[in-house]
Amino acid sequence: MRKIEHIGIAVNSLEASNTLFEKLLGTPPYKMEEVLSEGVKTSFFMNGPNKIELLEATTPDSPIAKFLEKKGEGIHHIAFDVEDITAEIARLKAEGFTVLNETPKKGADNKLVAFLHPKGTNGVLVELCQEAPEAV
Amino acid sequence: MRKIEHIGIAVNSLEASNTLFEKLLGTPPYKMEEVLSEGVKTSFFMNGPNKIELLEATTPDSPIAKFLEKKGEGIHHIAFDVEDITAEIARLKAEGFTVLNETPKKGADNKLVAFLHPKGTNGVLVELCQEAPEAV
Repeated sequence: MRKIEHIGIAVNSLEASNTLFEKLLGTPPYKMEEVLSEGVKTSFFMNGPNKIELLEATTPDSPIAKFLEKKGEGIHHIAFDVEDITAEIARLKAEGFTVLNETPKKGADNKLVAFLHPKGTNGVLVELCQEAPEAV
Repeated sequence: MRKIEHIGIAVNSLEASNTLFEKLLGTPPYKMEEVLSEGVKTSFFMNGPNKIELLEATTPDSPIAKFLEKKGEGIHHIAFDVEDITAEIARLKAEGFTVLNETPKKGADNKLVAFLHPKGTNGVLVELCQEAPEAV
């Protein structure tokens, strides 16, 4: 848990929200990427040592589509930068947290990621996030 | 908008959540503080260049009490560190954002703060946050 890597925000329209967050943050997105396995299109903004990720659903059964339906637009998750995601998963399991991905999966922005169940973290969806090694 | 200063998380019990977030982040809170004007007790955790703020309501009409009643525990706001909050308020108003505090107010952790209306920011409650000058 070295820093907040990014905050993920669920939005209805990536196009409209890219314009909005460019005005808010004073910088355009540095990357846009579709993650087919998750049913999302994403854009990323740099903010000093942190990032803001916007997420738009591309399929009706995407987790983001379900979130938008239930809660509307807003903050979806907080991602922490970790040095060794496998070690961190083991540490958090031992502390009693429910890890949703025991084996890290490939996420957007060249990361290995794993999520913690929000029921064990005061309703906060927590993502662990490690820069993917070159060979992965 | 120099970095994410902190993420604010609304919780039912600061005491229980302090234990939980100490396990999650691997460090105890560095500060606990009551903000009477806002009807909240807060605790702060360092996380590299960022912070996590936990907020518990102390009065039934506190904004945090209302948030918990409506949405339950979870991420309440995202605060960005700004160098000059007065200039940033003027910039964001000119960009069309609705600033809820035209004059910055004193927040927790020795900050001057102002909020943007979440209706103009995709449902995200955004806080601007500047280290309060010594004389304030």
